[in-house]
Amino acid sequence: MLFMKEHVTKQARRAKEASRELACVSIDVRNAALLAMADALEAKQDEILEVNAKEVEAAKEKGTRRNMIDRLILTPQRIAGMAEGIRQVVKLDDPTGKIDFDTTRPNGLKIRRVRVPFGVIGIIYEARPNVTADAIALCIKSGNACVLRGGSEAIRTNKKIVDIMKEAATNAGLPANVIEFIGIMDRDAVVVMCRLRKLIDVIIPRGGAGLIARVIEHSTVPVIETGTGVCHTFVDKTADQALALKVCINAKTSRPSVCNAMETLLIHKDIAAEFLPKIAQAMIDAKVELRGDEACRAIIPDMKEANDDDWATEYNDLILSVKIVDDVNAAIAHINKYSSQHSDAIITTDPDAAAKFKQQVDSAAVYVNTSTRFTDGFEFGFGAEIGISTQKLHARGPMGLEALTTMKYLVDGDGQIR
Amino acid sequence: MLFMKEHVTKQARRAKEASRELACVSIDVRNAALLAMADALEAKQDEILEVNAKEVEAAKEKGTRRNMIDRLILTPQRIAGMAEGIRQVVKLDDPTGKIDFDTTRPNGLKIRRVRVPFGVIGIIYEARPNVTADAIALCIKSGNACVLRGGSEAIRTNKKIVDIMKEAATNAGLPANVIEFIGIMDRDAVVVMCRLRKLIDVIIPRGGAGLIARVIEHSTVPVIETGTGVCHTFVDKTADQALALKVCINAKTSRPSVCNAMETLLIHKDIAAEFLPKIAQAMIDAKVELRGDEACRAIIPDMKEANDDDWATEYNDLILSVKIVDDVNAAIAHINKYSSQHSDAIITTDPDAAAKFKQQVDSAAVYVNTSTRFTDGFEFGFGAEIGISTQKLHARGPMGLEALTTMKYLVDGDGQIR
Repeated sequence: MLFMKEHVTKQARRAKEASRELACVSIDVRNAALLAMADALEAKQDEILEVNAKEVEAAKEKGTRRNMIDRLILTPQRIAGMAEGIRQVVKLDDPTGKIDFDTTRPNGLKIRRVRVPFGVIGIIYEARPNVTADAIALCIKSGNACVLRGGSEAIRTNKKIVDIMKEAATNAGLPANVIEFIGIMDRDAVVVMCRLRKLIDVIIPRGGAGLIARVIEHSTVPVIETGTGVCHTFVDKTADQALALKVCINAKTSRPSVCNAMETLLIHKDIAAEFLPKIAQAMIDAKVELRGDEACRAIIPDMKEANDDDWATEYNDLILSVKIVDDVNAAIAHINKYSSQHSDAIITTDPDAAAKFKQQVDSAAVYVNTSTRFTDGFEFGFGAEIGISTQKLHARGPMGLEALTTMKYLVDGDGQIR
Repeated sequence: MLFMKEHVTKQARRAKEASRELACVSIDVRNAALLAMADALEAKQDEILEVNAKEVEAAKEKGTRRNMIDRLILTPQRIAGMAEGIRQVVKLDDPTGKIDFDTTRPNGLKIRRVRVPFGVIGIIYEARPNVTADAIALCIKSGNACVLRGGSEAIRTNKKIVDIMKEAATNAGLPANVIEFIGIMDRDAVVVMCRLRKLIDVIIPRGGAGLIARVIEHSTVPVIETGTGVCHTFVDKTADQALALKVCINAKTSRPSVCNAMETLLIHKDIAAEFLPKIAQAMIDAKVELRGDEACRAIIPDMKEANDDDWATEYNDLILSVKIVDDVNAAIAHINKYSSQHSDAIITTDPDAAAKFKQQVDSAAVYVNTSTRFTDGFEFGFGAEIGISTQKLHARGPMGLEALTTMKYLVDGDGQIR
């Protein structure tokens, strides 16, 4: 533990020192380094695939779950995708250097506020090796050094990706230690990282609820939480029911494993007898398991019973909980109680109901007459996505590159005193 | 402990429920309530003064330190100042409702981002009772409910202020529980508050380093850190020395007890023999104790010796550590090592040195040719100040009302699916 702690701290200190140098590197050099990294990944794909194949083999022998192995496997196409992702990041605007506040005070002080890199970003993530390339690209683009900690299943693949990208970065003129990869598998390394105040400026966990909870529990470094999605759609009594059907099927079934998929459907009581049978049939046709409250089961008796846990569960699967509510107020109350404050939608033709829903639902993204699946950095036009923040500090909802910057005030005077 | 935990949780839950109602209360009603609160404090000042006098008496009997008692004492003037502070807040713009992002996507989705209240703000503070009125006013203005936890020395005074303000607020049409005051003196109540995720949206500690460290250690609720100030001034070799003298004396002596006062003076070696005796004499005339490194003591032998702790210490007193450095790079390195990243200044006539200093010093406010004492919400023109953030998430430097808001995305569609 002591050795591990010293080692992780040393790596973070190296990253901090490198971040000071990186802050003086122009966007042109950063972009050129990113392009070199993308090229290097493709040029050396055989090395990556070889390491990855061994790691996949070892995981299979250990009896690792199949979907975990699927996430671990790299192919030439997936490596090309990683390189293409980096090239897309190169095309984005530099998020640093923008002046978003500029004033001259009555005493003559000129005060400007400028966007600057955080310094060092700690990213703790799980199995997918593509996150390694993605996280490095976003950090370098935004002028930040990074300390990365990936999942143990992919450690050798991740290490190889990092080695290749670091070499390309250094050759392109970036400081050597802007990318630090924690290769020690001790689980407590995460805890050590989360407590390196003054060395790591912000921690971003990217992974499941367990990982995020652990980071929040232990971290004294500020955390940007990218959270789980218990997303709702409320079908109001005035809804265009054909539109509601189309949107609900999309929200539940287009990609059920992701955080912006719908998990709970709320239906206004006045239309339940008419709408529920239609949506239930459509969901069943799409292989969705339905779990309803008592009122639902009075209409569709062979629906499974939803218990209290269901309302708070992110299924990430073809399962949907369904509840009949009295009105828009009851829908809002249910959502504010059970939602993970990620994305929630109303389907209505009543502008008052829409306005009330938008004002009172306390979630990162609130939708009217469309699918919760749109909560996504690319769909919002940000060109990149770090994750979806479900907390309220610093960033909320889809995070673009700007979320990886902070600001500082620059004040010019000529001898003013107070 | 169990009873305390239940009680604090219940209060936070009441505040959360009230915050949902408050989100629908117009700025006119919020402003009217604030004016009513200001009037009530003045109308009932005798009640406050009576409770306060007893509390001051009790503190004296307990042998409380004199400066602590000074901070605890209320007078008619101080109560008038609290009321006036609230009226100033009324005059500020509503920080909620501003739309700072507005786009229509190619698929027709209209996406807007709007500033909204956090919901419930937890404020943990120390002895001054005026913080109670100030914190309530800023929270209500920004549409937030608040859970307040003040220091034990002022608990009865604080409770009286809260009771008067709550009554006025309720009479003016605000929900009853938008202000919750934790009256249980158990120190662990702070820890309980800091862990009420989903009930408290953000915690702001306002107080000394010990309080802030305790909150950061235990909090799972996001924290806005308002920190200590170890502020530097670097006098470059090209400095206008008369200007440097004036600015340094101001930064150190105009109010040594506050966080934006200078604690360490760095002097370029090329001018040390000339400048150090002048500034030393001026500081000594102003009753400042000097603590220097070896190079300083070679010039002024009777200066005390600065040890390594001095460089990291916020004296909050008429003490100044002094160090001679080789050049601007050495000054920047010293500052980035020891500064609390609050406010740091360079005095120079060399634009390159100024530019380098501004780019590389990693602090919330970086000054050229003026005093660090200007880091202040009012001096920056924000009209109010919640505190000075020395962290990098959400807010950095002086925080105005906007720092008490978050955002949400409102998305209008007409049946778009993904």
